[in-house]
Amino acid sequence: MKQALPPGLSAAQMDRALKDFAQVVGNDWVLATDLDRDTYLDHFAVDEAAHAPSAAVAPLAAEQVQEILRVANRHKVPLWPISRGKNFGYGGAAPLLKGSVVLDLSRMKKIEFDAENGVALLEPGVGFYDLYDHIQQHKLPYWTSVPGNSWGSVIGNALDRGVGYTTYGQHTEKLCGMEVVLPSGELVRTGMGAMSGSPTWNLYRYGFGPSWEQMFVQSNFGVVTRAGVWLMPAPESMIGLDLELENADDLGWAVDLIAGMRRDGLLQQSPSIGSWLRGAAVLTTRKEWYDKPGALPDDVIAAIRKRFNIGWWSISLRLYGYEAVNEAAAGVIQAQFAKQTKQPMTVTRWKQGMPMNPAPGQAAFAGIPVTFPLANAAWHGGRGGHLGYSPVLPANGRAAMEQFRRTYDRYREFGMDYHGSFAMGERSIVNVNQVLFNKDDRDMMSRVNGFFRALVNDATQQRYGEYRTHIDYMDLVAGTYDFNHNALRRTNETIKDALDPNGILAPGKSGIWPKRYRNLRK
Amino acid sequence: MKQALPPGLSAAQMDRALKDFAQVVGNDWVLATDLDRDTYLDHFAVDEAAHAPSAAVAPLAAEQVQEILRVANRHKVPLWPISRGKNFGYGGAAPLLKGSVVLDLSRMKKIEFDAENGVALLEPGVGFYDLYDHIQQHKLPYWTSVPGNSWGSVIGNALDRGVGYTTYGQHTEKLCGMEVVLPSGELVRTGMGAMSGSPTWNLYRYGFGPSWEQMFVQSNFGVVTRAGVWLMPAPESMIGLDLELENADDLGWAVDLIAGMRRDGLLQQSPSIGSWLRGAAVLTTRKEWYDKPGALPDDVIAAIRKRFNIGWWSISLRLYGYEAVNEAAAGVIQAQFAKQTKQPMTVTRWKQGMPMNPAPGQAAFAGIPVTFPLANAAWHGGRGGHLGYSPVLPANGRAAMEQFRRTYDRYREFGMDYHGSFAMGERSIVNVNQVLFNKDDRDMMSRVNGFFRALVNDATQQRYGEYRTHIDYMDLVAGTYDFNHNALRRTNETIKDALDPNGILAPGKSGIWPKRYRNLRK
Repeated sequence: MKQALPPGLSAAQMDRALKDFAQVVGNDWVLATDLDRDTYLDHFAVDEAAHAPSAAVAPLAAEQVQEILRVANRHKVPLWPISRGKNFGYGGAAPLLKGSVVLDLSRMKKIEFDAENGVALLEPGVGFYDLYDHIQQHKLPYWTSVPGNSWGSVIGNALDRGVGYTTYGQHTEKLCGMEVVLPSGELVRTGMGAMSGSPTWNLYRYGFGPSWEQMFVQSNFGVVTRAGVWLMPAPESMIGLDLELENADDLGWAVDLIAGMRRDGLLQQSPSIGSWLRGAAVLTTRKEWYDKPGALPDDVIAAIRKRFNIGWWSISLRLYGYEAVNEAAAGVIQAQFAKQTKQPMTVTRWKQGMPMNPAPGQAAFAGIPVTFPLANAAWHGGRGGHLGYSPVLPANGRAAMEQFRRTYDRYREFGMDYHGSFAMGERSIVNVNQVLFNKDDRDMMSRVNGFFRALVNDATQQRYGEYRTHIDYMDLVAGTYDFNHNALRRTNETIKDALDPNGILAPGKSGIWPKRYRNLRK
Repeated sequence: MKQALPPGLSAAQMDRALKDFAQVVGNDWVLATDLDRDTYLDHFAVDEAAHAPSAAVAPLAAEQVQEILRVANRHKVPLWPISRGKNFGYGGAAPLLKGSVVLDLSRMKKIEFDAENGVALLEPGVGFYDLYDHIQQHKLPYWTSVPGNSWGSVIGNALDRGVGYTTYGQHTEKLCGMEVVLPSGELVRTGMGAMSGSPTWNLYRYGFGPSWEQMFVQSNFGVVTRAGVWLMPAPESMIGLDLELENADDLGWAVDLIAGMRRDGLLQQSPSIGSWLRGAAVLTTRKEWYDKPGALPDDVIAAIRKRFNIGWWSISLRLYGYEAVNEAAAGVIQAQFAKQTKQPMTVTRWKQGMPMNPAPGQAAFAGIPVTFPLANAAWHGGRGGHLGYSPVLPANGRAAMEQFRRTYDRYREFGMDYHGSFAMGERSIVNVNQVLFNKDDRDMMSRVNGFFRALVNDATQQRYGEYRTHIDYMDLVAGTYDFNHNALRRTNETIKDALDPNGILAPGKSGIWPKRYRNLRK
């Protein structure tokens, strides 16, 4: 792909900036060929060219990141930091602002492991596989928590508020202590790390005074070059309780029941209640089932469910910890479900000393990295892709059922196959829906934008906000956060301008535009 | 006390400002008599006059707070917000900057209770007693978490990172969704509250983009006028496991053991391991035991311990939740302790349906507000007071023992009675030490400042930072956070200047000075 340029910058100016970047990282790590640029596109995007980078620069250390930011300030070149660039469904490696230089941190792969406390101090290039391998290699008594597709960065995932399946699955909450390069190039450490040489940097989260870790999450206020991540001590036992729900309407009581368990702490991981397509789209393709456009008819859905022996919804609960405690909790959980359904839960038991060789669909529950769910991008055939639609709901069955019905109808209206799940937080639900598509199907692609906007509009009518969104829709979603004329966004931008007067860092991320580019807000 | 004025403001200017405040809240709620001013002094402070306010203004609603901030900007009058002003040991109701007007929020006492989700949306004037009474009166199935002295504000305590004793004891972590008046007078809501009418404002913590709740904790960036607080569902059962440790050195293994339980989630509240003076100073006074100055000799310590039948250290662990799960966890905990000591733990069991009438020393474990620990201020007789010294340590026995030895020796060197506890967090310890004194004892009072500075210096040598400190020492403590030439403080002040260009809000809080007063940093 030929070079795109950011607004107001000439090719000659960009060229001078790239030469200065090369002074910092060496010629080999300024990546500016057509092939290089193509590598950083979002291949899941409806319009890949809309987010084309001009180049990428890949530093090896925080000092180089500092220097890159200083160069970017000098040349007024916008940068788009990525950890490993695997934020698929939300933008992959591509910058929001066309022509930005991707700041690729994937070479920064240092792992410092505090085995006594179960804390890993990681650079952003460390992937879930890297951390898992490190733990296995050194026989450390800790488990990782991994997202469904685990080839991304541990830090990057936490910084976009990604989730996993163990009790450590709310990844952003397990961050403790960051090292951040501010837009000025200044290096700061958060929390106790603000004291040099502090032994509690990655052990106590708050420090003295205001605490800034969530300031650097889903934002464009700094480049995180290291962060502490807490890991779950390897449990003595893991108990699985799985249930298939026969009817779509069973979602209501199941959500109410699990919401109670989450609230009272009986259940400490965040189970995801997923629809029948979740497994089917990974293990088969659509044409094996049906060859017409439009949403799948009910008899095809029934056939899919029969083949995989799954419910309309599947629920997987997991308990981690001491065997006696897990058994007691499992007993209480089973008794509560027994009041709602005659169907027994499938119970699986693992304990220390037993081999750990889970099926791919079970690996993430044991914190073992997997990528097989990514296969769902192939559901429709052609060049596959997907887009995430993820509003946050109150944790109750009525809200979940109504949201499901609304969303299901929209999928059918736009001729798409419903793919939804309800991740049960402590007092809320993140309703993650995937919009699967085939980029070679022009008709299908022509519907995606309208479909997504209809979904966001439906949520906004209910006053539900998205927890995360694709770079195409960050302004749309940020705009729905409208209290007092978008007061929080205005506050974000006041701070943005104070920290980044030249507007060089990730302009537009999460709807936050620096003064220099504020006119670009959609 | 006669009126103190802030730097650079004349009595006439202040007078005009107070008249404008009265336009907002009415004459009755601008409090500027000598008696009024005396009310807002920190009566525990070594030098009360150093933090004398000029007046107080007490609004009833967020709109009045907004208007007060606009008036303060016009007249360049510094404000010091307090919730209920009970931050004793850290400054009480008094402003850091002499002559500030206290912004007293204690009239704002609205409680909105979401009984389905167990969330209270509170104004800052709501005290722990108010919330507890509300819950009892409406028979709501939730427990409060209270600090040892519970007459303060629920929100105020969380905003200073105060703690309690149940699994919801890390109060700042249970905040979810804030309404904040920025220094400009602008009203913002954090998290999902940034969407108007959001039903998940107080249910999901992060919202979209950077999350700001910890920005308003221990800071001077805004006045929190409402916040959501999550409450623990009333447990089916509570089990107590208490142990008295015979020797000072037992602290080491006990900390290691409990640190492991906290890390692996076996224990989900934060037990505080406290020294023998904790109970004795509440229930008796020093002169009943000893009439000489200097630290208490060992035989007196032995006599105190004998009378109260307590160890050198006392440990109280508590389990909350389902009875079967608690019993299983209690079994595992007892088995782990049995490997370290022959002494059995004292086990107490409560479950739903049993009366709840705990002894005062046990009430806080059940989330029942208490104030009796405050009696320790009378230990030395005269006008009593205390000062908190609270460094954060790694969660291991060696660090705890060394810190204890160092601190104990300092107490003896300065002729003070050791009063320490170790609050066991998930991966760190907050080592809360109280310096008890008699303000009428001039000799004793002359030693306090040197003693406190020696303690902070000792911690800093180990690179341990305080998690909270008295307004007298905020610059001292903030200065110890020295990474990259106090980079975090400089960042705080960049943001401070952007949000509060006139420097009106709580100048000096947590060592953050606005440009206007930055020369006042000690």
